[in-house]
Amino acid sequence: MPINELIHSLSKMPGVGSRSAQRIALYLLKNDKIAVAQLITVLQDVYEKVHKCENCGNFSTARICNICADPARDATQLCIVETVSDLWALERAKFFRGRYHVLGGVLSAIDNIGPDNLNIKELLARMQREKIEEVIVALSATLEGQSTLFYLMDVLEPFHVRVSSLAQGVPIGGELNYMDNATLSTAFQDRRLLAS
Amino acid sequence: MPINELIHSLSKMPGVGSRSAQRIALYLLKNDKIAVAQLITVLQDVYEKVHKCENCGNFSTARICNICADPARDATQLCIVETVSDLWALERAKFFRGRYHVLGGVLSAIDNIGPDNLNIKELLARMQREKIEEVIVALSATLEGQSTLFYLMDVLEPFHVRVSSLAQGVPIGGELNYMDNATLSTAFQDRRLLAS
Repeated sequence: MPINELIHSLSKMPGVGSRSAQRIALYLLKNDKIAVAQLITVLQDVYEKVHKCENCGNFSTARICNICADPARDATQLCIVETVSDLWALERAKFFRGRYHVLGGVLSAIDNIGPDNLNIKELLARMQREKIEEVIVALSATLEGQSTLFYLMDVLEPFHVRVSSLAQGVPIGGELNYMDNATLSTAFQDRRLLAS
Repeated sequence: MPINELIHSLSKMPGVGSRSAQRIALYLLKNDKIAVAQLITVLQDVYEKVHKCENCGNFSTARICNICADPARDATQLCIVETVSDLWALERAKFFRGRYHVLGGVLSAIDNIGPDNLNIKELLARMQREKIEEVIVALSATLEGQSTLFYLMDVLEPFHVRVSSLAQGVPIGGELNYMDNATLSTAFQDRRLLAS
């Protein structure tokens, strides 16, 4: 039964349970299936036109994405992110004017993800080709993110560029009594000297 | 940009906000857009094969749905529901063995929905054609549901069949101190006599 297939496909999407998959299927089917037809058109457009940027791994309709192609972006600063979703989060915040490189994941022994599964070869090619002066590693503050950071520091060493990672500490608006011990201890160790 | 179109379409679905629409879009795009291709296939199948049952208004791949076509279902009992989603809810509970009629909504002066906007003509045709002995009106216990019930009682009157509506009261597992006044007062009035 095609409706059950649809509900099954929808329920595999992140954040969609079986009950909301049913609601979405009924929403798509009402009014003579207009929404089904529209969604098919939109998905076909995405399928045919959206590709990965050959340079950074962002999604793009052109061979090279808007950000890589924009001459106004600072070509000396390269921000390494795990996923396109992280890239979007940084772009939403609108403060970084350099370029990105999407790793496609982090190193993980448990998930069997080694350097060859990430876009590291492409990163090294860019390091040689582009005039990059600073690499900002913006990975998650998890164990895997940190070990990936150390690995990147190793492979970037021969290029003699500045490598930095994001500051760790209490998030803006965070209340101390809700912070975990590791965050508190990191924030304490990395405290900022304001007067001496 | 096709991705933004996709996120926009997804965010109009019930229960999907703009942030989860982004997550779903990224989920569909990963692994070389396999999920996009699969979803297109499933949606095309639904678009081409799923229609409304000509008899009851349920969704079906055939002209007449499984329930209407099933000779094991009791043809003398007809349950009137508002939407296909209500029909599915009753089917999940697996106790009703009669047939259904999907009204497609309830009467509502505010939303400008009158009898002509509902499948009432089809209902009356069925009342004449089929050997229905009892009509169970299973509409929501809202003001609109109740006025639709009264309207249905009027139009069903000439057929001299039993008409019933669902019991109203405290739901199973419901705690009295969380019930609203209308529910409590209804449950009190319709109390069941257990011994006398």
